[in-house]
Amino acid sequence: MRTVELHQPTGRVLVVVCDKGEDPVDAIGDALDRHDLRAGRVTAVGGFQEADVGWFDRRERDYRRIAAREQVEVLSLVGDVASRDGRPSLHVHAVLGRSDGSTLGGHLLSARVWPTLEVIITEVSPELAKRVDPETGLALISGLDH
Amino acid sequence: MRTVELHQPTGRVLVVVCDKGEDPVDAIGDALDRHDLRAGRVTAVGGFQEADVGWFDRRERDYRRIAAREQVEVLSLVGDVASRDGRPSLHVHAVLGRSDGSTLGGHLLSARVWPTLEVIITEVSPELAKRVDPETGLALISGLDH
Amino acid sequence: MRTVELHQPTGRVLVVVCDKGEDPVDAIGDALDRHDLRAGRVTAVGGFQEADVGWFDRRERDYRRIAAREQVEVLSLVGDVASRDGRPSLHVHAVLGRSDGSTLGGHLLSARVWPTLEVIITEVSPELAKRVDPETGLALISGLDH
Repeated sequence: MRTVELHQPTGRVLVVVCDKGEDPVDAIGDALDRHDLRAGRVTAVGGFQEADVGWFDRRERDYRRIAAREQVEVLSLVGDVASRDGRPSLHVHAVLGRSDGSTLGGHLLSARVWPTLEVIITEVSPELAKRVDPETGLALISGLDH
Repeated sequence: MRTVELHQPTGRVLVVVCDKGEDPVDAIGDALDRHDLRAGRVTAVGGFQEADVGWFDRRERDYRRIAAREQVEVLSLVGDVASRDGRPSLHVHAVLGRSDGSTLGGHLLSARVWPTLEVIITEVSPELAKRVDPETGLALISGLDH
Repeated sequence: MRTVELHQPTGRVLVVVCDKGEDPVDAIGDALDRHDLRAGRVTAVGGFQEADVGWFDRRERDYRRIAAREQVEVLSLVGDVASRDGRPSLHVHAVLGRSDGSTLGGHLLSARVWPTLEVIITEVSPELAKRVDPETGLALISGLDH
């Protein structure tokens, strides 16, 4: 376990409101790039008209894709932003709710927003760095970038 | 997509602890009104002895009601506060856990707390404004209110 | 309902990155102890190779244990920190995602991280106090500790 204690929050907050038809991964990524926000907490709620989420397959070293092809409530979208190769890298997981209240979820790969997705990103530090983990090939947070 | 970047956090935090039997939508709404908090991030955990959640039906332009009539863990309650017609408007989604670990969820319509609901609301800006979306009839965040 | 309004955020943030094989309840608890952080909001995403979550059984006054013995995505881990008997007390609920996208969840009792768990803890006040609720035997947030 590695712990970083931060004492000087930047106080920067991005509120990103995704419109109908937008892909939230692209939209949030664009906002992070444009505002150069490289470390933060992400939460969101809203709705998707379709979404692809992933479960990480240890043997395949890749995400298994799970498709939702129906209108779902975005019950939670939780995650973080860290820096990979000097650019913001988004890591968010989603729980989605179907019309009968049943749920599905995974690592958010792509989606189409309907009618809205209300995203709040609070910066927690100038930069948190990701490094590629050799065992999985995934970029994992490794600590502060200096 | 619309993005608002905020640089002067108010630093205001409300911790709302709901008691047994209270409705969390009413209780959180009352706290927001009393403290006049009109823009923020909401997270909570706790338990409900019953709850009604909703899935937004595009054709009906209204929420389809899904009832949980059993003791459930509030696995997540995530959402935001924005301003509608000059008053705080709460938008939270819930994921609920049954006794066998299975889950259900939706837009939180009403519930009865048991034994507690621990809510943290961090203000992110003096005001985020909602406007009614003509297609859905829903009040969606439209940007900063000036 | 009890509400505490806080105006002087400490600005302290802990980023805890749990490594493969670690128990997140122990790891986060250790970090809270070491940094003496007694009130905050917790969110996390990542993966577990196994986990035990709980549903609170009102009659037994104890958690019923629900075991996940498979690789799961941590779709959300949401909760808070408060102070119990002068030490940080963690209260987090988890929603977990299986390989087919189905979910399960509960009060997080124990787990084994794989490949990572990225935890963000933002301090909200110097101290929030828990008191034991006689009806349930649970330690619930009761307000500010002075």
